[in-house]
Formats: sequence, structure tokens, C-alpha cells
Amino acid sequence: MSLVVVGSIAYDAIETPFGKSDRILGGAAMYISLAASYFVRPVKALSVIGYDFLQKDLDLMTAHGVDLSGVEVIKDEKTFFWSGKYHNDMNTRDTLVTELNVLGTFDPKVPESYTDCRFLMLGNLSPDVQRKVIEQLPRRPELVVLDPMNFWINNTPDSLKETLALVDVVIINDEEARMLSGEYSLRRAAHKVMAMGPKIVVIKKGEHGALLFNHEEMFSAPGLPLEEVFDPTGAGDTFAGGFIGYLSGNPDLSFQNMKRAIIYGSALASFCVEKFGPERLSHLTYTEIQGRVNQFVRLANFDLLSREIRDYMDQSA
Amino acid sequence: MSLVVVGSIAYDAIETPFGKSDRILGGAAMYISLAASYFVRPVKALSVIGYDFLQKDLDLMTAHGVDLSGVEVIKDEKTFFWSGKYHNDMNTRDTLVTELNVLGTFDPKVPESYTDCRFLMLGNLSPDVQRKVIEQLPRRPELVVLDPMNFWINNTPDSLKETLALVDVVIINDEEARMLSGEYSLRRAAHKVMAMGPKIVVIKKGEHGALLFNHEEMFSAPGLPLEEVFDPTGAGDTFAGGFIGYLSGNPDLSFQNMKRAIIYGSALASFCVEKFGPERLSHLTYTEIQGRVNQFVRLANFDLLSREIRDYMDQSA
Repeated sequence: MSLVVVGSIAYDAIETPFGKSDRILGGAAMYISLAASYFVRPVKALSVIGYDFLQKDLDLMTAHGVDLSGVEVIKDEKTFFWSGKYHNDMNTRDTLVTELNVLGTFDPKVPESYTDCRFLMLGNLSPDVQRKVIEQLPRRPELVVLDPMNFWINNTPDSLKETLALVDVVIINDEEARMLSGEYSLRRAAHKVMAMGPKIVVIKKGEHGALLFNHEEMFSAPGLPLEEVFDPTGAGDTFAGGFIGYLSGNPDLSFQNMKRAIIYGSALASFCVEKFGPERLSHLTYTEIQGRVNQFVRLANFDLLSREIRDYMDQSA
Repeated sequence: MSLVVVGSIAYDAIETPFGKSDRILGGAAMYISLAASYFVRPVKALSVIGYDFLQKDLDLMTAHGVDLSGVEVIKDEKTFFWSGKYHNDMNTRDTLVTELNVLGTFDPKVPESYTDCRFLMLGNLSPDVQRKVIEQLPRRPELVVLDPMNFWINNTPDSLKETLALVDVVIINDEEARMLSGEYSLRRAAHKVMAMGPKIVVIKKGEHGALLFNHEEMFSAPGLPLEEVFDPTGAGDTFAGGFIGYLSGNPDLSFQNMKRAIIYGSALASFCVEKFGPERLSHLTYTEIQGRVNQFVRLANFDLLSREIRDYMDQSA
């Protein structure tokens, strides 16, 4: 069940209405890998870091069963750095600084030990780089999942479409789904994105939960109403990591099982926002996760009266 | 199970990206009553109309079992008129014209035949007028439901708070909940609104569904992803009408049954937006409603693996 996760490993400096962080561990591949590590180990990370990357941060990932043999260290460059400030509503943010550093020239090299990849998660990176990873694998993975972000939708749409044609699942937020498809209706947007290649589309709606589509069915996962969102950084990547991690640990690619993967991804994301950066995500127990998942079960559960079910059966007969 | 519905009966002129309507039947009490009529009859409407109100529109309501004995006709004034234009996203609109007409001096008089009221739905009106209705009832109804709109939150907050203290359930949209409570988190907002009196808060989130809160529990109903929203006018009132209608027809005030009421309200609202004004809402069959409710069941349904449930039971033991 080998899982390979591609994306950035970074340092972030975050400002929210609740406070400011120092340079803390960040990056899509880091969040995805930590989240996935609760379901499957090792998680094979493919990324690049610079000379300034701290041993304690490598150790944190290793302790979560993240295999770092595919993480290249560039000796004369710094690690990718991002700094941002969230507005009061926590749904919008301004980017203050983006220093690409090592990411600017990232040329991914898939190690021999990663070539047994069954599940491939392509986190936020240029679509050209994402394709280079797919092309280096001797066999197509069973499931390729892509997170295509707004920057690439706007700036390299043609390359993004080439990558989209190669993947099975797209995980995208509502705004990006509308941007990519040109459709306001998320149902129409999902079907337009499926027409570009993927068989499955997951639309993240932040506090409103997530939608899962294939060609025939749809599923709506609730967002857990939280008292407080402390720091949303990494929540989307954590969701994706929970999703792919769950599927890697329970390798059943039915729609029913993908629903479970969405719920586990949502549960992990709901932890992620409770503290700065990966602080909460890196200290979870299986009991906590299962308890949170059960909150989702209670939140979404309803039943009809037996009379109503009978009536429906009669009508469909 | 007598249900009394208070609110406007109006004429609307609506413009959407799909087209323009003439003056068509509108108003909160009209949408609420039609929606409720699929679950309970008669629905006793309390409202006011003018000399220009058409017999065919009275007939439409009567045909749905709406009792109009509490609808006063003012001989020298026109019916309340509203005209609005929706933006391309269908979530925002501009009001072009508001002519209060008969509504400007509405002084509700509860007919003798309405005094057996068990369920009272207070649709959008001034909180002063809403209180006048409650005060005229000889016995407090079993359930009083209020829809407090943004205009009254901004313009008559003190009067609104007096009315809020008298009701059991508030149905409010997310923006209004935030405005009324001063809290961005909808969970906190719901609890602040409950502290004002109501035991139950329902937060409508448009395409994202609805949340139901009491002091201990919460429930998230999904929004049905639609290919197209033709005209959102009345969807919120239709939701409220389905909710109170379902409870009146199935008078069980448990949280579990309120969840069902939310789902039936959501199903009716999803029909409402398919055509202009009440056109779709006024031509529904029980089979169609039950079929749509079942789409909500499929949309929200997921299960955990038996191992996961067992683990959770072990942890909670």
C-alpha cells in the first residue's frame, strides 16, 4: 500500500487575529504526510528543502513514519518560505512574503525505493513538476490524486490540463472549482472537471464541509461547526492527507469508502485549525480521531419515519 | 394541530440572469403557507392585502388548504410590492422597489377561529407586529417559530429582542445570525441567540444547507447541489414553511424529529428555486417530495467500518 506524497516542505510565518507565529514548519507535503501517517506508514515524501532546515523538524516527520529519502537537500539555498496574515473572518488572507528559494528550481527525482507507489498524492506544485513525477514511475499507481491550486489555474492552465488528464481524483476548493470550470453551480463545475480526465472530484468548502462527486453519485460531508478557528493554515492539505491516507490504509476504492475517507479527512482538518501550524496535527491519538469522527456521524445523522420510507419504496417499486 | 402563519402576502417583480417575471404572487406568509400545506391543512394565514389582489391568487392559496379568514383586505390601498434583481451568482440581489402599501399600517387581528393555534410561525414582519399576534392568543402555542430578518436586526434591535424572548425556535440565515450575535463562528452565534430566549436555533446557509442547534446537540443538513438555480425568491420562507408544516403534521418536538423537519424544509426549498416565484412550489406531488427527500438521504449517508465503530465503543466504554 505504498503512498507517495509530493509537494512543498516549507517554513511559514503566520499572523491571525489570535496571535503571530515564528517561522514554523509548513508546506503541503508536510501537512499531507502527517495527516496520512495516522492511517498508513511509511508515507514516502518527495520534496526539497534548503540548508536552513532544522533537524528537529526532520525528526518530527520521521517520528510520524514519514520516509524522507525522497526529500532532496540543497546545500546553498534556503527552504521555501511563506508568510501570511488572516483577516478577522479567517476565510481570507493576504500573502505577505513568498520566497520560492529551493522550490524555484525543484526537479523531482523519484528514488528507486518509491517506485512501488500504489497511491500518489500530488500536492500544490507546478503542474509541470507534478507530471515529471508521474512520468518517472515505472507503473501507473492505482490512484493518483491532485490538488490544483488557483495560482496554476490562472498562470499555467494548459500545463494544468495536461496533468489533469493523468489523474483519478481532484481535490479542489469551491472557488478554484468555479475558476477552473467557468461554472458557478458546484455540481456543474464538478462534471466539467471530470470531463477533463478525473473520475472523482472532491470540492472543499471550508467551514461548509466538502462534496464528493463521481459520474453517477454525490455525497455531502458536513463541516463541523467550531467554536473557534485558531489558524486555518494547512487545513486543506490536512484534509487531502487524511483522505489519501485513509484510502491507502483501507485500500477499497468504492464510492462508499471514499465517503469515509472524506469524513476522516474532515476530522483531521478540524483538529489542524485548533493550533498554529502542525502543532495539533502532530500530537493526535487514534482515540481522539475516532472520537472526532463520531462527532461527524452524530452531526450528519438523521432518519426518516418508517411510514416515509415505506411510501418511498412503494413509489420506486 | 392548528398552524397559524403570520407574514406578508405580496406581489413581486423578479429579475434573474435567466429572465424577468411580471408581477407575481409573493410574500413570506404565502411561501410558508404553500410549503406547510403539503403536511397539514388547513394552514391559517394572518396577513393583509389590498384592492389590487387578484381572485386567482386567493384561489391558488385556497386550493392548497390555506384558510384566508385572517387575511384582511384594505379597500383603498394596494398590496405590498417588492421588486428585485439577482446578480449572476444568485446569492446576492439588489432591491429595486419596496412599496409597503397595506403593510405600512398592518395591525393584525387574530380571528376567533385561529385561537386554537398550537403552532405559530412568525414570518418576516416588524417585531412589534409579531408580538401583537402572540399577545392576542388566549393560550401560548406549543411552538412559536420566528424568522427575524436583517432589516429588523439593524433597525429595531430592542423590539426584536423583546420578541425573541417569547419564541421557541429562531430560523435565521448565517449572515443574520452573525449580525444578531456579533459572533463569526456559527456555533457561538447559535448559543448567543439561544441566550436571548429561543431553545432552538436553525441557521440557513443557502446552497450549503442548514444547521440545527439546541443547548446540547447540533445537526448539519446538506444543501442539495443543483445544476441550476432559476429564482431563489422565497426559498428561505419555503424552508421555514416545510419545517413548521412538517412539525405540525408530525407533532413530535424531539431533536430527532426536528432534523426530519429540516430535511423536508430543505427538499421543498430545492423545488422552489427551480422556477419563478411559487410556480414550482404550487404544483408538487407527495411522490415528488418523498423522492427529493430520499435524494437528501443518499447525499448525506455514510457509514463507518464495523472495526471503527467497535473501536469507538471501546473508547467510550
